[in-house]
Amino acid sequence: MAEFSLYSYFRSSASFRVRIGLNLKQIPFEYKPIHLIKDGGIQNTESYKELNPSKQVPTLVHEGKVIGQSVAILEYLDAVKPEKPLFPKDPFAHAQVLQICEIVNSGTQPYVNLNVLQHLEKSYGFDQAKKDEWAAHWCRLGFESLERILQKTAGKYAFGDTVTAADCFVIPQTFTAKRFHVDANDYPLVGRIAKTCLELPEFIAASPDKQPDYQP
Amino acid sequence: MAEFSLYSYFRSSASFRVRIGLNLKQIPFEYKPIHLIKDGGIQNTESYKELNPSKQVPTLVHEGKVIGQSVAILEYLDAVKPEKPLFPKDPFAHAQVLQICEIVNSGTQPYVNLNVLQHLEKSYGFDQAKKDEWAAHWCRLGFESLERILQKTAGKYAFGDTVTAADCFVIPQTFTAKRFHVDANDYPLVGRIAKTCLELPEFIAASPDKQPDYQP
Repeated sequence: MAEFSLYSYFRSSASFRVRIGLNLKQIPFEYKPIHLIKDGGIQNTESYKELNPSKQVPTLVHEGKVIGQSVAILEYLDAVKPEKPLFPKDPFAHAQVLQICEIVNSGTQPYVNLNVLQHLEKSYGFDQAKKDEWAAHWCRLGFESLERILQKTAGKYAFGDTVTAADCFVIPQTFTAKRFHVDANDYPLVGRIAKTCLELPEFIAASPDKQPDYQP
Repeated sequence: MAEFSLYSYFRSSASFRVRIGLNLKQIPFEYKPIHLIKDGGIQNTESYKELNPSKQVPTLVHEGKVIGQSVAILEYLDAVKPEKPLFPKDPFAHAQVLQICEIVNSGTQPYVNLNVLQHLEKSYGFDQAKKDEWAAHWCRLGFESLERILQKTAGKYAFGDTVTAADCFVIPQTFTAKRFHVDANDYPLVGRIAKTCLELPEFIAASPDKQPDYQP
């Protein structure tokens, strides 16, 4: 049995963040696919709810300890495997990296999550075009916020010249945006950083189309 | 000049979290009110955007260092003022507390934020009743997720028998829910923990109606 297991869905942006983090830290893990759509969504089963009270991916299992929420998982990984840190040690630098993560995590992605789009359709009759328009709006606002903070923090990567957790959050968001026809390249810093990161094997291997549960 | 300043809005749930955290850590701070509605919202001015790229409250300023996002601020406070910690030291305990914070921070509050309700009204014609229904839906789902995780973590407070950052997030969420006619007391653990916390002076003093910018 692997030391770490990750419950993940290939297209899930939050799962993608954690896959990048695990790869950057060179932590091998067992991939446990959770199909978010098939049979009403495996995340909604009683057994998965027991694992993750939010009925979401990702969930990390490490020696019997179960953790949900990508921010909590990445900080946990740094705490138990301090080599190749994802967060800087300096308190202010740590806070700035975390602020970038949160602009994606709480400021952008929640609005374009599957459960929100499903709710807009089911309860308010949003068709595909209206859902896409809704999602694109939030993706654009999110990139605008990121662009403003990156002007202060970016070097080669989102925070200085070393890859951090901030990149683990920003890059998956560019994939999500693309699905709603928002091009990260319209945002100079986001676009450049995404391009730079996506040359790294850790980001490539974490991409949706490289996962065992990938479906075109 | 105070060592810490907090840009805050009395009704803002995320500001409320940080006010509790500062009080629990007995850190005095200068209160800088940012009115989110007056004149189109002070958070949308160029000078405030410079301070907070997400155009949101809260923003903490500490010795010239500017930090947005409530999770990042609370972790920063623990790093620079380690007395009376808001997060446990043990990595798994830290992760569990952070997971509870995120169920509110990224899993609930984003859907009921002012900017979302304004967007639903402006772009999709949601009237007050429809906005309330939308917000209540997410408040209920959030409490259901919290109730599931609290069954594993709660003692006297959200995580064990000591107040943590988890309580800083859960309690303001009960105020938000109330505005949308969702009663935290329908969720036994959330309701009980909120009642217990709201007997503490640090929570009372952080409440919306105790702030200098409070308006009934």
